[in-house]
Amino acid sequence: MRIVLDAMGSDNCPIPDVEGAVLAAREYSDSIILVGDQSKIHHELAKYNTVGLNLEVVHASEAVLMTDKPSAVGKEKPNSSMHIGLNLVKDKRADAFVTAGNTGATLTIATLFTLRRIPGVKRPALVSIIRLPENRSIILLDIGANADAKSEWLIQFGIMGGIYAQKAGHLPNPRIALVSNGEEEGKGNQLVIEAAQLMKASQLNYIGNIEPKDILRGGADVIVTDGFVGNIIIKSFEAMGSTLSNLIRHELKRDLVSQLGGLLANAAFRRVAKQIDPYEIGGAPLLGVNGVVIIGHGRSNAIAIKNAIRQARLAVSGGIIEAIKGGLYDTGMKSE
Amino acid sequence: MRIVLDAMGSDNCPIPDVEGAVLAAREYSDSIILVGDQSKIHHELAKYNTVGLNLEVVHASEAVLMTDKPSAVGKEKPNSSMHIGLNLVKDKRADAFVTAGNTGATLTIATLFTLRRIPGVKRPALVSIIRLPENRSIILLDIGANADAKSEWLIQFGIMGGIYAQKAGHLPNPRIALVSNGEEEGKGNQLVIEAAQLMKASQLNYIGNIEPKDILRGGADVIVTDGFVGNIIIKSFEAMGSTLSNLIRHELKRDLVSQLGGLLANAAFRRVAKQIDPYEIGGAPLLGVNGVVIIGHGRSNAIAIKNAIRQARLAVSGGIIEAIKGGLYDTGMKSE
Repeated sequence: MRIVLDAMGSDNCPIPDVEGAVLAAREYSDSIILVGDQSKIHHELAKYNTVGLNLEVVHASEAVLMTDKPSAVGKEKPNSSMHIGLNLVKDKRADAFVTAGNTGATLTIATLFTLRRIPGVKRPALVSIIRLPENRSIILLDIGANADAKSEWLIQFGIMGGIYAQKAGHLPNPRIALVSNGEEEGKGNQLVIEAAQLMKASQLNYIGNIEPKDILRGGADVIVTDGFVGNIIIKSFEAMGSTLSNLIRHELKRDLVSQLGGLLANAAFRRVAKQIDPYEIGGAPLLGVNGVVIIGHGRSNAIAIKNAIRQARLAVSGGIIEAIKGGLYDTGMKSE
Repeated sequence: MRIVLDAMGSDNCPIPDVEGAVLAAREYSDSIILVGDQSKIHHELAKYNTVGLNLEVVHASEAVLMTDKPSAVGKEKPNSSMHIGLNLVKDKRADAFVTAGNTGATLTIATLFTLRRIPGVKRPALVSIIRLPENRSIILLDIGANADAKSEWLIQFGIMGGIYAQKAGHLPNPRIALVSNGEEEGKGNQLVIEAAQLMKASQLNYIGNIEPKDILRGGADVIVTDGFVGNIIIKSFEAMGSTLSNLIRHELKRDLVSQLGGLLANAAFRRVAKQIDPYEIGGAPLLGVNGVVIIGHGRSNAIAIKNAIRQARLAVSGGIIEAIKGGLYDTGMKSE
C-alpha cells in the first residue's frame, strides 16, 4: 500500500507530520510518500533512523496555509503539497492521501480540482470519528462540507457512512440514525422529517432519530446530519469538554486538600483523558470523492499523524471507494 | 406582584412545585397563586408553616402530562392547570405564569389559546439561560419553539433576547451574536448568512458569528439561532457534561489511591457542580407571547421552582412585555 502524507499540513508542519510518517513507516510496512518542501522534509527526516523504511519524498513548491481561502487556493496554488499529493492518488500512483491541513482547502482541491466525486455522489461529506469509552467509536457526518443540505444528500451520507463503518470499522450491520431535536418519529426540522421518510423507504439499517445524549452513549453507529449541525455538535462537545476540564482543574487548585486530592486522582484523570483523546483517532475521511482522503486536526502531533495514516490503511484495505460505488449502484443512485 | 405557579408542572408534581412556592413566598413578598388539583395542593401545603404567606390556590380539574401531545392538549384539556393559569395572566389577574411542565404544551396553550403573541411578533422563542463561571449568564434562543426559522424571525429573537438581557438581566448593552460554524463573516448556512445581513443593518448591538467554545466563554450575551440548532446545542452541552462526569466518577472508583483522591477532591467537585447547576437558574422565558411565561425543567426540585419564580419576578419588574412592544416599535416591526 502506498500512502501520501501532506508534510505541510499540521500547524507545526513539517515537524509532527514527518515524525508521524516515520512512526507509521516503522509500524506498518507501507510506503509513505511525503509531499512538501523537500529541503524541510529532509531536514526533519535526518533526525530519525530511516534505514529500511519505505519513505519517499515528492517536492511541492507551495503549501496551503490555514488562513488560505478554500475557494481560491485550488487555482492560486496549483503546486501545493495538497494539490500534488491528491494528484498522486488520482493518477493511481498512491492509494490514499492524508493531511492535517486546511479542511476546506482539502475539500475544494479534492472535489473540484483533482479526485472529483465518485460518479453518482451528489455531495461529499466530512466525517468525524467520535471515540466512546471501551474502545468503541461512532461516525458522525457531515461535519462541515455542506452547511445547507438536501434530504437526498443525507441519504447518501447514510450510505457512505454505513459503508465506511462496515469496511473500515469492521461493523457487520451499522445502525444509522438522524440527528434530531427529539427521538420520536416526526420530530425534527423540515430537512430531518423529509430525510427520515427517505431513510425508512431505503434498504439502510435506519433506526430513527437520535439526540446528543444518545450519540455519546453509542445509540447508533453512523449519525447523519447536515454540515452545519454536525459542525456545531462536534464543537459543542469539545467546548463543554474543555470548559468542564478547566473548571475542575481550577477548583482543584483552590486549597491544599483539593490539591492533594487532585494529585492522587491524577492517574484516574489521565485514564479519562486517554479515553477521549482525539489523537487516538488521528483523522477521518472525506467521503464521496473518488479516492481515499483522510483529514486530521491542525493541532495533530506525531501520534495523531501516525493514527491518521492508520485510518487511511483501514479505508484502503476495506476497499471503501469500490464499496461506495457498489452501494450507490445497489440503491439505484449511481448515475453512470 | 402576583405570580401564578402551575402546581401540576414538574415530574414529581405537586411536591417540589408547592414547596418551591412556599420558599418563594417566604423569600419574596409576592403573592403566589398555585393552580392545580386543590386537594393535592392543600395536602402538600399542610406540610409547611404558611402563616403570613401570600399563597392562594386556584383549582384546575385537569393536568397536562409530559406525554400529552402539545398540538392536541389545548383543545382536549381546556381545564388544565396550564390553561387556567395562563388565563389568569391574560385576564390581568396575575403578572406572570411559571411552570415546570410540558414545554411544547406551554408554548401551544400560551401562543394559540390564551396569551397569544405580542402584536408584531412573528414567532415566540424559547430561551435557555446558560450559567457561566463567576455568576455570569448568557441567553440562548430559540431552543425549540421553531425547528425551522426564517431570518426575519432570528432578528426578532435578537431584539427580544436583548431586551430580556437588559431588563431582566440588568445588562446595559447586551452583545448579540449568531451561532455559526465559523466566526468569520460570511460563514454559516443560508439562514445564518441572511440573518447576519439583517442584523448588521439593524440597530442591534450585533457582534457577528459565534461558535460553541465562545458561547461558553461568554463571548456574547445573547446568542441567536433557530430552534433546531439551539436545542441540539443545549443537549450537546448537557450530554458532554454528563458523559465526562460519569467517566471521571467511574475512573475514580478504579483503585484505592484514586478513591482517596476523589474523596479529598470532593469539595472541589462540589464547587464545580454548583457552578453548572441548572437548578440555580430554575427557568427561562418563552419570549414573544403577550405575558410573562417562565418554563423550568421537568426534573425541577423545590429550589429550581423557587428560582424560576425569581426569574418571573425579574421579568415582571423589568417590564419586559412593554419593553418588547417598544423594541419592536422602534425597529419598525410592530404591525399595529
